[in-house]
Amino acid sequence: MVESADNRLVGRVFDESDYTTWSAIAIATAVKAGRVRPRELVAHFIQRLEQVNPLVNAVIAWSADAIYEQAEALEARLAGKNLAAMPLAGVPVLVKDNIWVEGWEVTQGSQLLLGVVAPKDALVVARLRASGAIILGLTNCPEFACRSITTNSVYGTTRNPWALTHTPGGSSGGSASAVAAGLAPLALGTDAGGSIRRPAAHTGIIGMMPAAGTVPFSDSFPELPLVMNSMGIFARTLADTRLALETMRGLPVDLDGPITNPAEGSGRGAGPLRIGYCQNLGMIGGLEPDVENAVRTALNRLLAQGSVVMTETAPDWMSNYSESGIAVLEQTGLALLFGEDHLDNPGLIDADVAKQIDSGLNASGLDVARALVLRESLTSQFNSAFQNFDLLVTPTTPCTAWPLSEDWPRQIAGRSASPRDHARFTWFVNQVGAAACSMPCGFDAEGLPIGLQVIAPAHAEADLLALAEMLEADYALHLPATGA
Amino acid sequence: MVESADNRLVGRVFDESDYTTWSAIAIATAVKAGRVRPRELVAHFIQRLEQVNPLVNAVIAWSADAIYEQAEALEARLAGKNLAAMPLAGVPVLVKDNIWVEGWEVTQGSQLLLGVVAPKDALVVARLRASGAIILGLTNCPEFACRSITTNSVYGTTRNPWALTHTPGGSSGGSASAVAAGLAPLALGTDAGGSIRRPAAHTGIIGMMPAAGTVPFSDSFPELPLVMNSMGIFARTLADTRLALETMRGLPVDLDGPITNPAEGSGRGAGPLRIGYCQNLGMIGGLEPDVENAVRTALNRLLAQGSVVMTETAPDWMSNYSESGIAVLEQTGLALLFGEDHLDNPGLIDADVAKQIDSGLNASGLDVARALVLRESLTSQFNSAFQNFDLLVTPTTPCTAWPLSEDWPRQIAGRSASPRDHARFTWFVNQVGAAACSMPCGFDAEGLPIGLQVIAPAHAEADLLALAEMLEADYALHLPATGA
Repeated sequence: MVESADNRLVGRVFDESDYTTWSAIAIATAVKAGRVRPRELVAHFIQRLEQVNPLVNAVIAWSADAIYEQAEALEARLAGKNLAAMPLAGVPVLVKDNIWVEGWEVTQGSQLLLGVVAPKDALVVARLRASGAIILGLTNCPEFACRSITTNSVYGTTRNPWALTHTPGGSSGGSASAVAAGLAPLALGTDAGGSIRRPAAHTGIIGMMPAAGTVPFSDSFPELPLVMNSMGIFARTLADTRLALETMRGLPVDLDGPITNPAEGSGRGAGPLRIGYCQNLGMIGGLEPDVENAVRTALNRLLAQGSVVMTETAPDWMSNYSESGIAVLEQTGLALLFGEDHLDNPGLIDADVAKQIDSGLNASGLDVARALVLRESLTSQFNSAFQNFDLLVTPTTPCTAWPLSEDWPRQIAGRSASPRDHARFTWFVNQVGAAACSMPCGFDAEGLPIGLQVIAPAHAEADLLALAEMLEADYALHLPATGA
Repeated sequence: MVESADNRLVGRVFDESDYTTWSAIAIATAVKAGRVRPRELVAHFIQRLEQVNPLVNAVIAWSADAIYEQAEALEARLAGKNLAAMPLAGVPVLVKDNIWVEGWEVTQGSQLLLGVVAPKDALVVARLRASGAIILGLTNCPEFACRSITTNSVYGTTRNPWALTHTPGGSSGGSASAVAAGLAPLALGTDAGGSIRRPAAHTGIIGMMPAAGTVPFSDSFPELPLVMNSMGIFARTLADTRLALETMRGLPVDLDGPITNPAEGSGRGAGPLRIGYCQNLGMIGGLEPDVENAVRTALNRLLAQGSVVMTETAPDWMSNYSESGIAVLEQTGLALLFGEDHLDNPGLIDADVAKQIDSGLNASGLDVARALVLRESLTSQFNSAFQNFDLLVTPTTPCTAWPLSEDWPRQIAGRSASPRDHARFTWFVNQVGAAACSMPCGFDAEGLPIGLQVIAPAHAEADLLALAEMLEADYALHLPATGA
């Protein structure tokens, strides 16, 4: 095991001899050209899993045998020469522990699901495999992916590679920490309120959440009812993000045919992208000065280049909404899926999650109906706002990562914060069915990563990725590494 | 008042001197060419309202003064010569009594709303007016449009022009009876479970329900929460149906600009339309032999012409669903909008509707969540089925119109029927967000009209209208008329 001198895995730079620092595209190109043999490639990742994962506890299930088996199968496929069908040839991918991988015990971080083996690959996993990817293992998440830190009673706590005493956030904290720590260039996540975007921001990588429905949840756990959940991807480069997304997206029927759902353009025509920057979205709550400065600096660079035009507004519509009015939807969804098990096994489910289930069991039909009306009204306001700009930009979170000892940041910018205050820039994006991506945009005074969120209506994903690409150009890749 | 000899308003044929027998397109063409003056035109419709409406009680609010006022304003607009912007110049249109018309008391058939005046035109009404239409008046509906007959304690009972002792069905029975009786060539309806399609079938006219969201509900009553409601149109020709729909459809923002949301094609390419004919959709329930024969005859004619290919299947998926599992959504939506008023004014609301509200007040969040899960699963099954055909065809209803003395047909084809058995071909179409149209396809032994339903996924509305056009060509227009 590698020890880090100062509690931090930092300073990692591109190293041509270490495949774990390569991008997914670089790996696939080298594998397809025959410059790297899959067995040799995965040996590096296995070594890194052995050395680094114990420090962060991001990957909670993997097996060298299963990885080598896939590498050998890939070598046979490569001999078949149908290389065009394998854009991800040899690329190691991690899967969040709430998505089925055939033959694996997928637990959602819950004692309830211990011993239950996934009967098949989720469609998205099958698509990744068909594209040549190698599934390395499963990443940690809080129980049922319903907390914003990454800890559970099955596998324990995941740490942030930028500060091992800190959380990567959640719920896809395992995937985020793993990609940030160089355990794989790509990892799957799910996001129903920020579960991809916030961990990406807290670990300095890209977290892309396409609009709900873009990537199918087929052939996996039943979806959480009433919730706008989205499957997305963690990556270290935008080119990798695009490539993974193209492989994952599309209606379930497309598996056997060509992938026919590329991202659509916005049809906005020529001219610079119009950005609406809304620092606090009309919401009350602290914003750390380092976060504000980092986001503004990133935008100012783009403005100086003339790549974008920007409108700064504090939309009054957000002040009419709060997550608490809509939380009953997730609570009731949880109660429908797990309420009976919870009543049959008191105390087995994490106390924080159990509380949510209890609320759901007690909710009335009117409570749920009211929340759905709120969602519709929010959606309508959101869509109207986009008449004035193409993309909405916010900080991904108002603060950087916080210590493992706290369930949520108790203070933000010196102000007392409620449990979901740190999530106030992310939850509403799911409710309105939009797409969003968190891009790295610097560090705070303690060296903790800061994220900038780009939000777009579902039909304007291409614009979103275009802006993300501009942002990426301004930020060198800061890969954390072991002190070794 | 005109009396009919045998309780039936029949035998009406095109009469060039009587504008009330003309199509909307014929009216607009004549008005724009200056061959008919709006004042002269509306005088015919006013006369017909005076003579025929008392027999059917379809139009429950109208005023000769208001109609003449619109005719005069139109004459001034016509002088302005911007004729291209008025595809509906002079066309009389009726509006269901649950859509706002500025300055009118719009009651939804409820004592609760007596005396409440609509503060503005619904967007759809404004669009019709902008296109040159003349709003004649309001048509009857059951309270909150929540029954499948057309009667209420405010305006009484609407009769079917094909048999004055029979109901036109509901809830848009006022609009259907009015168009069938020649009171207007076009009338607006709403449909959350068949409320346009079944009355159209029972009155021998076209009832087109675009997919939910196609025609906006803006600037009118708040939409019924949790319900997939759709605004659509009654007409006597398919060309009129298309024209009205093009005027009505599109996002709210389009009002001041060109209408930019024409029906999309299916992208299915060349070749005949593939029809899936599912006589009972895997559901249990009687089907009247005359209905079965009429629908089959209509389809066989198309098959003989080579215009379509047909697959006959009884899809097993529908047997997994019943309206009762999903009814809690409408009940809870009603309870959210009217529950407090109902509790404050016991006995004021129609007993049948009050029962639905009570169910909604007592529903749990889990009940609602279960119903929404059912809706999603039904949608997924429905969409999968459309891999095998472009359009799904069913009878619109398993029976023809029934006597006013019964709330619902107690027997269908000699079998005992439950209250919503007659609606079993229509309710699920709303749940899956599809479009559907009822086309006239003949008469039963008693001379009552029979309807054929064409169903398409939202993106294939153009195919739906293409098939409807083929069906129309085979059925001469049978307009009912007074015995005069």
